Amino acid sequence: MMDLNLIPDGGISWLDASGPDSAVVMSTRVRLARNLTGRRFTIRSDAASRRANIEDVVAAGRDSRKLADASIIRLDEIEPLDRQLLHERHLVSKELAGFSPERAGIKEAALITTGKLGVMVNEEDHLRFQCLESGLALGEAHRQLESIEKELGNKLPFAFDPEFGYLTSCPTNAGTGLRASVLIHLPGLVLTKEINRVLQGLSQVGLTFRGLYGEGSEVVGNFFQISNQTTLGKSEAELVDHLSTTVRRVIEYEEEARQILMRDARLVIADKVWRAYGLLRYARSISFEETMNLLSGVRLGVGLSLITSLSIYTLNKLMVFTQPAHLSHAEGRELNETELSSLRAAYVRRVLEEDSTRLA
Amino acid sequence: MMDLNLIPDGGISWLDASGPDSAVVMSTRVRLARNLTGRRFTIRSDAASRRANIEDVVAAGRDSRKLADASIIRLDEIEPLDRQLLHERHLVSKELAGFSPERAGIKEAALITTGKLGVMVNEEDHLRFQCLESGLALGEAHRQLESIEKELGNKLPFAFDPEFGYLTSCPTNAGTGLRASVLIHLPGLVLTKEINRVLQGLSQVGLTFRGLYGEGSEVVGNFFQISNQTTLGKSEAELVDHLSTTVRRVIEYEEEARQILMRDARLVIADKVWRAYGLLRYARSISFEETMNLLSGVRLGVGLSLITSLSIYTLNKLMVFTQPAHLSHAEGRELNETELSSLRAAYVRRVLEEDSTRLA
Repeated sequence: MMDLNLIPDGGISWLDASGPDSAVVMSTRVRLARNLTGRRFTIRSDAASRRANIEDVVAAGRDSRKLADASIIRLDEIEPLDRQLLHERHLVSKELAGFSPERAGIKEAALITTGKLGVMVNEEDHLRFQCLESGLALGEAHRQLESIEKELGNKLPFAFDPEFGYLTSCPTNAGTGLRASVLIHLPGLVLTKEINRVLQGLSQVGLTFRGLYGEGSEVVGNFFQISNQTTLGKSEAELVDHLSTTVRRVIEYEEEARQILMRDARLVIADKVWRAYGLLRYARSISFEETMNLLSGVRLGVGLSLITSLSIYTLNKLMVFTQPAHLSHAEGRELNETELSSLRAAYVRRVLEEDSTRLA
Repeated sequence: MMDLNLIPDGGISWLDASGPDSAVVMSTRVRLARNLTGRRFTIRSDAASRRANIEDVVAAGRDSRKLADASIIRLDEIEPLDRQLLHERHLVSKELAGFSPERAGIKEAALITTGKLGVMVNEEDHLRFQCLESGLALGEAHRQLESIEKELGNKLPFAFDPEFGYLTSCPTNAGTGLRASVLIHLPGLVLTKEINRVLQGLSQVGLTFRGLYGEGSEVVGNFFQISNQTTLGKSEAELVDHLSTTVRRVIEYEEEARQILMRDARLVIADKVWRAYGLLRYARSISFEETMNLLSGVRLGVGLSLITSLSIYTLNKLMVFTQPAHLSHAEGRELNETELSSLRAAYVRRVLEEDSTRLA
């Protein structure tokens, strides 16, 4: 199994709740898609060309300031469970996690990462730069990305068209190749049933939302990934600013919704929040989805100061470490569903107990 | 409001879990129905005759050994909430609790009680002797009743027919006038779905079951009142022995069911039990019915030694003191549903917290 200590910060500094608005916005992710001129898009490439892509990007990274000390992980050479682990830390996409049990499902692909900052090689595009930050930090994430994209762009020829901008495998990404997203917790809007109005508003301003794990994933635990829909016709900075401004407005709506709940349904909310805590504190078997839903309740309780003995960091940590690959990794072997549910419950209990003891 | 200290032991020594098999059998109750010759049955009586009944029984009680120091409570002269309080302690019947808000609903009636042992006057029958014991103690409860019935029978003329035995207002009670019942907790049989078979078996041997509050009341929290169906054609002692033997067999079935659960579904049961505890420990608003159902889970956990930090006495106390009149009495005023749910949750939390602190 993979030694996660090889990745700086284990690749999860984005969950430390140190960033702006981190009680509501768990994390910020910005990515840039780039492709190498003269090479076929990954989907139509052959093994030799994919290996060449990896070699070129690795070499360019080694010569850069930002990626000089990065970890290099060949995703097609590690165990499926380790790929899933990286995915659960949001370091590689679902596609590169390759959930199929045969390693064969994954072709030559690599992750070059400093933890926060990384490049996936041979995902849908040849390069997918990514920066993860704690809280709402779109500007900061974008600056980091810009600088690394520039460094590598000096060494690698990125496919660019004067009319369309950067060329990408899927036309919806062409132009800036930028997708910026924030993972935001909106239980107040869900409970006051205002969420649909807000989500509809997003689509009217060129934004979209997804579940916890990006495209096609379900919304669980009232966590939404809000991101830009279009990548064309605006500059990177404009896209990032626009998302940032809109997310700030969504946070305001969420805060108003929470005030309304506290004014009109304080007892109901307190009950909901503490029941969630009670179940997490004592359950002996629990699914990941239920864990997320209960953590959502507890997080709301912490946000409303109904629960004061828990940190947002603890809640973030629970969200990541209760995932299947993380539990299996901690146990040193693959676990079946029953074992996962039981060990998940045990882990949650232990963390919550430690937190309450430490703060008592 | 009534000062419950006037009643010896507050009338709730039956919940102290000191009796035999008290983890499974919460309490035993035996009652004898008697009527005074030459007086109309209560339902056809007038106020003067009802007052005469009370005076006669009170006078006979005062001259007896067993009731000499008993409390005498005129049920038609106390507040509805106080009557409900007595009912929640199982000291008076639902009829005499008179749940209607007007005191007028209750005609002249009295409770003479030493706590464990008592007589209701002018219930359906002129006299309803009752003895309550902790655990499975049918023989003991019956002996107590026999002796008090004999003492009062020496002074009061009980209506008796050589063919039918003691005459009662409702023919189903004629003969011995005896109804013996045990309040038994059968979650194992409910969870293994064996309960219906067992309950059907009861009716084949002349026994019946009811919910927590006797006739017409629902089964909540897996608590069943098992009692004799017939009162005629057997002696009092035979009825009591028969019930006792059968209940012992039911306890064995329950224990077998619990062993099967622990063998085949240990994790599921542990999860169920601890989730119930977690909810009780942290809920901010809870109905009485949900409280009973969760206490049932916790009680099963204590019975199976999955939970070791709680006593059966605590669980019994929670069952009684979370009832509406008890909560209102503690607060010194009548409470609405929202207040009841909130104060109930607070009470449960406090008791469970104290228990876990004390035993930690």
